[in-house]
Amino acid sequence: MMSKDMEQCIQECLTCHSVCLATVQHCLDLGGRHADKQHITTLLDCAEICQTSANFMLRGSPHHARTCAVCAEVCRVCEQECRRMGDDETMQHCADACRRCAESCERMAGAIA
Amino acid sequence: MMSKDMEQCIQECLTCHSVCLATVQHCLDLGGRHADKQHITTLLDCAEICQTSANFMLRGSPHHARTCAVCAEVCRVCEQECRRMGDDETMQHCADACRRCAESCERMAGAIA
Amino acid sequence: MMSKDMEQCIQECLTCHSVCLATVQHCLDLGGRHADKQHITTLLDCAEICQTSANFMLRGSPHHARTCAVCAEVCRVCEQECRRMGDDETMQHCADACRRCAESCERMAGAIA
Amino acid sequence: MMSKDMEQCIQECLTCHSVCLATVQHCLDLGGRHADKQHITTLLDCAEICQTSANFMLRGSPHHARTCAVCAEVCRVCEQECRRMGDDETMQHCADACRRCAESCERMAGAIA
Repeated sequence: MMSKDMEQCIQECLTCHSVCLATVQHCLDLGGRHADKQHITTLLDCAEICQTSANFMLRGSPHHARTCAVCAEVCRVCEQECRRMGDDETMQHCADACRRCAESCERMAGAIA
Repeated sequence: MMSKDMEQCIQECLTCHSVCLATVQHCLDLGGRHADKQHITTLLDCAEICQTSANFMLRGSPHHARTCAVCAEVCRVCEQECRRMGDDETMQHCADACRRCAESCERMAGAIA
Repeated sequence: MMSKDMEQCIQECLTCHSVCLATVQHCLDLGGRHADKQHITTLLDCAEICQTSANFMLRGSPHHARTCAVCAEVCRVCEQECRRMGDDETMQHCADACRRCAESCERMAGAIA
Repeated sequence: MMSKDMEQCIQECLTCHSVCLATVQHCLDLGGRHADKQHITTLLDCAEICQTSANFMLRGSPHHARTCAVCAEVCRVCEQECRRMGDDETMQHCADACRRCAESCERMAGAIA
């Protein structure tokens, strides 16, 4: 059986993945510093590691604490970048999704480490 | 802005992806015909094309109708296989997730085709 | 045993996936029309469907002809877009990888259809 | 410009990903202990983290050293499991691909850490 914490973490990862991918489109629309290579890369990194971490948990993998640890780190960086550009609702929404995912992943990573 | 139909389809794809991945673990636990290569392959195919279709829609891709069409086909096959093994709740749950995702993807595929 | 054609198609898909991802970075560096949302979306679509098609073939999936058909379509669009921006070696290199992948996927799709 | 080490690491990750996915099929064919849930999960974990690490490097992500570190760990576990079942060429081939990928990822992880 899967723990409540893990179920929640999977959900946060899937949500954060979706929000980051949608935010890439928003940033490319806006252009300028929003479309900086470094920021788009962070969003794509965050989307992908969220997806990978969710999949490790869905497989009940013994390595999920390690992917969650990396996921938490990338989410924290993405949160900060989005917060700094926080001039609209989409960026704030993405920052919030990243923060919630980071907190949940930190719990999963810590539970084993 | 994303249509209500697309939002729902993304959600069905993400749910079906998660359910299929978890069902792989259940089937490997049970062994026997549940763990047949062909059935595990179908579940992994279904999980992956659901993820890919969700991502195409999240990117607002003009090609999402094409990935949704393939996704619907694979979901229908997966639904049937799970239904045929429908001797427990997990298999029925997976069959239901596949059916809902197939119906939603068929609408997305048809809206453009 | 896997056919020579399928082995080659897997290789073309993996190469095209890698080249498209690297080209995203190049285009974001250049900015301007290279970084248009629509072009970045095409490159990300192409990278992802190439990866998915390669994985279907690696799993020996009976559905690989369907993913290869979509992959071929997206590769053709990506080839044309890159060719149109063909003012440097990176864009030409990406267009060439897309063309080779499209041709290979068209063979896989046609072999069954 | 990408370093020779990173280019090689991307290639090892892509190869290891492909070999692990193909080995899943081989193990499901053989059945018995080869098809144990735990072993199939390891192979799927290894395939996915290799893909993710390759994509982080292809994006020139500053977080690639972190994904490479996790990738190296999972590859080492996968290598050992395959080596222990090393009664045929396919398992040995997979173990070798995992070892080469682990060594390359360890270099990438160490270069920054």
